[in-house]
Amino acid sequence: MKKWLYEMSWQEAADQIKEAQGVAIIPVGSVEQHGPHLPLGTDSYVAIGLAQAAAEEANVVLAPPVWTGWCPHHMVLPGTISIQAETMINLILDMISSLHCHGIDKFILINGHRIVNTVWMQIAGEKAQNQLGVTIKIFDPAYMSKDFVAAHPDMGPVGHAEEIESSHMMYMHPDLVHLEKAVDNPIQPSELYSVDPLYAHDTLCYVPTPVSAAKKHAQKALGITGSPSKSNVEFGKRYHEHLVKRLVKVINMLQEE
Amino acid sequence: MKKWLYEMSWQEAADQIKEAQGVAIIPVGSVEQHGPHLPLGTDSYVAIGLAQAAAEEANVVLAPPVWTGWCPHHMVLPGTISIQAETMINLILDMISSLHCHGIDKFILINGHRIVNTVWMQIAGEKAQNQLGVTIKIFDPAYMSKDFVAAHPDMGPVGHAEEIESSHMMYMHPDLVHLEKAVDNPIQPSELYSVDPLYAHDTLCYVPTPVSAAKKHAQKALGITGSPSKSNVEFGKRYHEHLVKRLVKVINMLQEE
Amino acid sequence: MKKWLYEMSWQEAADQIKEAQGVAIIPVGSVEQHGPHLPLGTDSYVAIGLAQAAAEEANVVLAPPVWTGWCPHHMVLPGTISIQAETMINLILDMISSLHCHGIDKFILINGHRIVNTVWMQIAGEKAQNQLGVTIKIFDPAYMSKDFVAAHPDMGPVGHAEEIESSHMMYMHPDLVHLEKAVDNPIQPSELYSVDPLYAHDTLCYVPTPVSAAKKHAQKALGITGSPSKSNVEFGKRYHEHLVKRLVKVINMLQEE
Amino acid sequence: MKKWLYEMSWQEAADQIKEAQGVAIIPVGSVEQHGPHLPLGTDSYVAIGLAQAAAEEANVVLAPPVWTGWCPHHMVLPGTISIQAETMINLILDMISSLHCHGIDKFILINGHRIVNTVWMQIAGEKAQNQLGVTIKIFDPAYMSKDFVAAHPDMGPVGHAEEIESSHMMYMHPDLVHLEKAVDNPIQPSELYSVDPLYAHDTLCYVPTPVSAAKKHAQKALGITGSPSKSNVEFGKRYHEHLVKRLVKVINMLQEE
Amino acid sequence: MKKWLYEMSWQEAADQIKEAQGVAIIPVGSVEQHGPHLPLGTDSYVAIGLAQAAAEEANVVLAPPVWTGWCPHHMVLPGTISIQAETMINLILDMISSLHCHGIDKFILINGHRIVNTVWMQIAGEKAQNQLGVTIKIFDPAYMSKDFVAAHPDMGPVGHAEEIESSHMMYMHPDLVHLEKAVDNPIQPSELYSVDPLYAHDTLCYVPTPVSAAKKHAQKALGITGSPSKSNVEFGKRYHEHLVKRLVKVINMLQEE
Amino acid sequence: MKKWLYEMSWQEAADQIKEAQGVAIIPVGSVEQHGPHLPLGTDSYVAIGLAQAAAEEANVVLAPPVWTGWCPHHMVLPGTISIQAETMINLILDMISSLHCHGIDKFILINGHRIVNTVWMQIAGEKAQNQLGVTIKIFDPAYMSKDFVAAHPDMGPVGHAEEIESSHMMYMHPDLVHLEKAVDNPIQPSELYSVDPLYAHDTLCYVPTPVSAAKKHAQKALGITGSPSKSNVEFGKRYHEHLVKRLVKVINMLQEE
Repeated sequence: MKKWLYEMSWQEAADQIKEAQGVAIIPVGSVEQHGPHLPLGTDSYVAIGLAQAAAEEANVVLAPPVWTGWCPHHMVLPGTISIQAETMINLILDMISSLHCHGIDKFILINGHRIVNTVWMQIAGEKAQNQLGVTIKIFDPAYMSKDFVAAHPDMGPVGHAEEIESSHMMYMHPDLVHLEKAVDNPIQPSELYSVDPLYAHDTLCYVPTPVSAAKKHAQKALGITGSPSKSNVEFGKRYHEHLVKRLVKVINMLQEE
Repeated sequence: MKKWLYEMSWQEAADQIKEAQGVAIIPVGSVEQHGPHLPLGTDSYVAIGLAQAAAEEANVVLAPPVWTGWCPHHMVLPGTISIQAETMINLILDMISSLHCHGIDKFILINGHRIVNTVWMQIAGEKAQNQLGVTIKIFDPAYMSKDFVAAHPDMGPVGHAEEIESSHMMYMHPDLVHLEKAVDNPIQPSELYSVDPLYAHDTLCYVPTPVSAAKKHAQKALGITGSPSKSNVEFGKRYHEHLVKRLVKVINMLQEE
Repeated sequence: MKKWLYEMSWQEAADQIKEAQGVAIIPVGSVEQHGPHLPLGTDSYVAIGLAQAAAEEANVVLAPPVWTGWCPHHMVLPGTISIQAETMINLILDMISSLHCHGIDKFILINGHRIVNTVWMQIAGEKAQNQLGVTIKIFDPAYMSKDFVAAHPDMGPVGHAEEIESSHMMYMHPDLVHLEKAVDNPIQPSELYSVDPLYAHDTLCYVPTPVSAAKKHAQKALGITGSPSKSNVEFGKRYHEHLVKRLVKVINMLQEE
Repeated sequence: MKKWLYEMSWQEAADQIKEAQGVAIIPVGSVEQHGPHLPLGTDSYVAIGLAQAAAEEANVVLAPPVWTGWCPHHMVLPGTISIQAETMINLILDMISSLHCHGIDKFILINGHRIVNTVWMQIAGEKAQNQLGVTIKIFDPAYMSKDFVAAHPDMGPVGHAEEIESSHMMYMHPDLVHLEKAVDNPIQPSELYSVDPLYAHDTLCYVPTPVSAAKKHAQKALGITGSPSKSNVEFGKRYHEHLVKRLVKVINMLQEE
Repeated sequence: MKKWLYEMSWQEAADQIKEAQGVAIIPVGSVEQHGPHLPLGTDSYVAIGLAQAAAEEANVVLAPPVWTGWCPHHMVLPGTISIQAETMINLILDMISSLHCHGIDKFILINGHRIVNTVWMQIAGEKAQNQLGVTIKIFDPAYMSKDFVAAHPDMGPVGHAEEIESSHMMYMHPDLVHLEKAVDNPIQPSELYSVDPLYAHDTLCYVPTPVSAAKKHAQKALGITGSPSKSNVEFGKRYHEHLVKRLVKVINMLQEE
Repeated sequence: MKKWLYEMSWQEAADQIKEAQGVAIIPVGSVEQHGPHLPLGTDSYVAIGLAQAAAEEANVVLAPPVWTGWCPHHMVLPGTISIQAETMINLILDMISSLHCHGIDKFILINGHRIVNTVWMQIAGEKAQNQLGVTIKIFDPAYMSKDFVAAHPDMGPVGHAEEIESSHMMYMHPDLVHLEKAVDNPIQPSELYSVDPLYAHDTLCYVPTPVSAAKKHAQKALGITGSPSKSNVEFGKRYHEHLVKRLVKVINMLQEE
């Protein structure tokens, strides 16, 4: 069965918009270094994978994925593509604005790229809500799995290319994961700072690492922050299922509004 | 074998950039109505399909596809997504600029969306060339198949969702084509105007049809301009092969420069 | 003793920049409704008050305060001033860029406006770091008092004009607080969503409430989300001291880098 | 008789707008090197000359000419003025928007600058049509003379400062042409590329030559691409008359709509 | 002799830039209502006329004129074209930037449009000076004739389409002036406000009249503020000569720097 | 009594807006070098001081002050903060736009920064008037004291950190003035140029001095243009009172409209 808007003819799209009661998902990822063991597209695979799985269980329009995101701090390793925050805001607004013309008025932006993309999504979301009168929800796996991850203290904290997203990719795209190439770079507690949404202590807010500092880090740890050696496909499967359940719930909430 | 940048780790990407001698393809399409018989993503499937086929025969980096394009005149039918020209310019420039940091300095923009996308691509291309010192080529199927189509006078002229792109899709994605739903809306010669690149007579330049005019047209012809009933998979196959050969030639030209 | 840059002559400023070892604070607040009991400038008073107190204990340049912030969702009640996110990004970047010309290369942005301003500050911070080579830290009271507030379970969660900021204002500006006018509007747990940084469960990310929804809320609760009746000046004093200590620590960290 | 808007008082303009049935011409050219034998303003003289001649034969409002255009690739020779594409888009939009307030709702943009200016004109044209509800036609001499030039195989192909525009200028401004200074630089067929609108073979799309490449070319050929020695005033006269006839036809078409 | 850049070939331009010692004039006017007796292009004729006359007496490069300016308050009468301030800033900057590439580093912007255009010219001038290292002078007839007009107390004050610019046009373009259609609308002293540069009393600064207020005024006075009946060609001639002498002096000052 | 919007609750603000009959003041200054004897914030103190004094005598809403302004030419001395003209335009427009939502429709922009800030204020003022339908007045002390200063020929002309603003600061903030550190740098008459609004002779229009030229000047005169030794507190007091009387008059004029 067709799930993605781009697979459908305009007549099929018209039907699907009606059945989905005006709810659409826009999956947004990033193409950025994820260590030597994960593909550059990891964040996009996450957003796309969750969207597609939710569409198996709920009626929802799947907008075409946005492969690229804002990731200036990962530009130090080859293949990374960073789009300016302003470009991303406009791109998402243009997509929402077009889809709104066709009767879609509730949008879930899935952020496969964690804390970094949320920033411009919030600005885009506010504009869309107040300019177009639509409803915007930002669904971020790291924020949406706080309960689940807290129950698995052997996993985490959230870093980059660490055990949580490695496990998730092992479940979704085993052929694209080369765990044997990973090195561990355990996250050291740093006073007054963490990017993990479960971090419960006083903290400064996130600003992407400047490129100069990121360079040093990349040389040391090949782009990894965390302990991918702890990854396992079973955790990845349950993490995925948790997120899909949450996503379906958000879809239903929007449809019942 | 991995072809797309997003499938590769950053180490694999580094190798691939070297082997491709700094040449990358960015496939750009559009998600827009293509009559009742073709999927909304037709233009993107064209750009992606050509890129992937060329990468089977030549060493080239495949950047992630850009699904959306500039298509204000198709907004009249459901599912169409039109991104502003300025957003598209910035998006492509940001992609080129990032990839250029990693050693890619020759880019082929494949335009699956014909005459409409070329406009902003030319502006983006000029900026990229003069600001970054890279080389940009715009590869548009309709312009790149003038010889081939001229040799098949029963096909064409270029319209929208007409027999040329219907045939191409029948070859590439037979499961997404429902030719039985197509209606013919033969292109009537119009004095001083045509969008067909083979048109040899005095002509005004292209400006997208205003939405108000497009509405009338869509009601009459379901979004089709042309005669899809003439489509056949064999023509689609040879059209595809012609384009892939041309694309490989452009890749090689850039590598020999 | 002069603390604020605007009080000093350029010669005094030159000396102060040297003594502060290139560290400056930019206090950023908001002028927005804070219920009937707190002044519109509450968020700015918070940022200014913390900056000034830290400057009593550490050598730091105090840039002029930015009174206004991004608060579209509070526009429903009189006196609120909301500046567009893009304008705020440019304003802060211009300030940083000028101060950088005079030898300041480490900046603490104090965000008196909690979760809302952080968004554009992160974008501005990244630009400043990568374009100018400076260091940016975002100091947000709600994030920087997680330990302290967790130790006072009778206080919170973070809402708006609730007991935490009411107590803080009672300590800093008792003459501007009219607690007798406050009404309680206790924060009801809402599935999958909270703005409190201590919230430990699965959550969607923040997007400012659309104006239409904010209107209903304002009529019901006069702009308050929380229980200001729990406020007390003693808690406010210790909360303030906790934050000042943290701020001094960040200044020192930057000076020792 | 007054033809140009700037010669008229506002009362005369009001009359003229009525008589022209809301049709106006905006001539847009370029000030850019045209070899040693043609003036820098050649493209503007072409647009202005056609506009003025058409106004002798049809009732049409002549907006003030835009002397400058987008020509980054000609910056290598002195006197060339290149305006950014975005500036040109805004300038034309502002002009159209103002004139639209006075009852003009059909615009012919004469492009004296051939393939280069059309790009931003298309973007401006789409905006004007969809934002203001006006009608925009882009009249480009090279596209509007395909029939005529095809009938003169000794002339062309279209290059730069070649025999076609040299002949045209010899007819319109004999005093500004110094054919004795011209050198021939015959256009060599280049595989997969041509800027001539009559080119019937597979081709890449136009992107302005980067400045670095343009430099080499300018040294070799003094800015000429083509064979100006073939120029003759008689061809120029008939070419001019063909274009004026076409332009009058477009004016009439718009008035009859 | 050729005076305007657009009349010259690039070789002639190169010579002229050298002879002018890098000094160029950019005449900027406006196409806006000037009462029933003066042409819409009055301000542009002034800027162009002064430039051309100065070029008879001094060696200077004449850039192509900019016909349009910023005049939102005159949009109430037909034929007026108002370009946004930002567009004008960018247009002038692009022109200066291009000419600077060819060795021109001193620019005189002649403002035919009086107090209104100076605003955006000052912003453009600052950018040009600090970004490009060029020198910018803004030559405004009303400011540059304070001595001369003060000596003719029967003339003025400066208004719009009043006796000063009417006299000037009678001298420069007698065929475009229809004094018999003019009506007098004498300037009434208004407390705390005047646009006359000779006004010696306390005054608010200029902001263009809003369109709603301008409408009432236009109905009453046909777009005239002042007493055109006092105009005479002799005053116009001497006013012109005064300004040309001043302009030549500024050219010489720049060449001697 | 509370005067500033930020001191009030939203309920108090609502009352005050009504009592002020929709008139608000936005004080805008600059943080820029003012010689060794005046504080960097001098221009802001002027704007704030006048606003506050007027609010003692008239009912008017005081918007939060804008501390920073456009002053690229003062960047040569430490502590100066220059915001881009575009940022300032947007900031003021956003403030006006928000306040307009709450019923304020007449705005007085007090410009503490003299001739420099007026430029972008005029552009912002026009936009506000035509986009929002509000009334904007720009109140600049130097222009609003022409009568008063003309009556004191021993004072002036207007320069920078000269006797007029030094006297004004001696009256308003004696503790922040260190007259003993001032040096005199008397203003030499310069042919065809002056920034003094009383200057009655032919003049070029203002463009901020380029940074390179400003550097030389700063070394010679420590940032002073004028003769601060002539300053006296009594003149400052009467100058202040003159301006406050004028400002109250403008408030009343707006309220009576």
